[in-house]
Amino acid sequence: MRKILVIGIGAGDPEQLTLEAVRAIAEVDVFFVLDKGSVKQDLVGLRQEILRRHPTKPGHRVVELRDPDRDRSAAAYVDAVDQWRRRRAELLRDLVRDEVPADGCGAMLVWGDPALYDSTLGVLEEMLADGTVDFEYAVIPGVSSVSTLAARHRIGLNRVGRPFQVTTGRLLAEGWPSGVDDLVVMLDAHCTFTTVTEPDVLIYWGAYLGTPDEILVAGPLAEVGPEIVEVRRAARERKGWIMDTYLLRRPVA
Amino acid sequence: MRKILVIGIGAGDPEQLTLEAVRAIAEVDVFFVLDKGSVKQDLVGLRQEILRRHPTKPGHRVVELRDPDRDRSAAAYVDAVDQWRRRRAELLRDLVRDEVPADGCGAMLVWGDPALYDSTLGVLEEMLADGTVDFEYAVIPGVSSVSTLAARHRIGLNRVGRPFQVTTGRLLAEGWPSGVDDLVVMLDAHCTFTTVTEPDVLIYWGAYLGTPDEILVAGPLAEVGPEIVEVRRAARERKGWIMDTYLLRRPVA
Repeated sequence: MRKILVIGIGAGDPEQLTLEAVRAIAEVDVFFVLDKGSVKQDLVGLRQEILRRHPTKPGHRVVELRDPDRDRSAAAYVDAVDQWRRRRAELLRDLVRDEVPADGCGAMLVWGDPALYDSTLGVLEEMLADGTVDFEYAVIPGVSSVSTLAARHRIGLNRVGRPFQVTTGRLLAEGWPSGVDDLVVMLDAHCTFTTVTEPDVLIYWGAYLGTPDEILVAGPLAEVGPEIVEVRRAARERKGWIMDTYLLRRPVA
Repeated sequence: MRKILVIGIGAGDPEQLTLEAVRAIAEVDVFFVLDKGSVKQDLVGLRQEILRRHPTKPGHRVVELRDPDRDRSAAAYVDAVDQWRRRRAELLRDLVRDEVPADGCGAMLVWGDPALYDSTLGVLEEMLADGTVDFEYAVIPGVSSVSTLAARHRIGLNRVGRPFQVTTGRLLAEGWPSGVDDLVVMLDAHCTFTTVTEPDVLIYWGAYLGTPDEILVAGPLAEVGPEIVEVRRAARERKGWIMDTYLLRRPVA
């Protein structure tokens, strides 16, 4: 039976690859790479570097999959993601059928942790539900960007005996969630931290984590918030894209 | 100046080591290993296996640090942790001073993610605050047990556009937190999932993740909850210790 591997490859540093991932890469017949347009060319380049650095199966191929467009209007967010995932599942299903030998191995190299705000597993489940191509799949966990953020700032994500929450910029815009004092925010294109009105919040921000372009800023939100907005804007303009995440920490009541 | 590395080494599988961690291990003069008593001997053994498998610096040493006792009574939890951390910081401070050359490198190999319910960074900050031994330190992130749990069950930690929370058994005992439908529970020695009364909750449970003893159970909490209690009890009895974690997922309202 065809096998698909979802391989977490770390936050951006090729050195964050695990030994398990290195070994898995050596067994892959076909790598599926999502071309996310010119702004993400750097990330595609990092994937290619990983394949250059490590042993690969003779005759392996790299197949690019063009990402279907997604309706990014706020009102229809979940529906739009569903629809986009279905389209992506159809594209990948056809590629798996046409490109992966019946007893072969296909793989997706996923930045960070495939379990964290990533659509790959949803796409594969959609493909299995569709039923026209049969395959088994496995996930190889990677170092997440959240772990990398915490490591770079040398902080824990939680405080002793306390919970923490991982959320999105979109949700943070609705206000600080109840019951938690430590928030990791992902997918925030709009510097939503600027809307936080809680007193004495600390922010630990990082962009391009694990890459040579990595930027870190930390401090009281009221002081460094405006600096982060400006650093982020300038970096995004310079590189054409940005990937960033941050932890917000308020005093425990 | 002395350097201390906090090296994340994955959830339990020596193959989860990152290339960055492998390279770091080769530079270490002194590894500090916490002896957590006979029940944790397996984990110590896994660390030793990692050192056997990978290049190490000639003449490197492994120094065992006996874990100070901790008052585990519920009322004083945070205080007890503080006190225990201070004692541990004193022990480690003396060992660093006595064992690590003035320009040398010491390291702690930390299971899973050093940013997740781990005391190592707190201990190091305590040591720096103490001021009697000067050193710099860095954190090398690892694959967390939470990522490994999700990978084994082939699930995401979040659902599309939704937050998730990481919490403890102790906190879950106070009730399902508001505002989240996906909960990762750690440090739960009492099967607190049995107290959850929310309807239609799914549980994804894993123990000894990444090791040959790994156990996975998933399904509707009402159905598989009792099974997990029994499987957990038997495994703990057989091995003398257990490390487990789980995700609870309730329907999105």
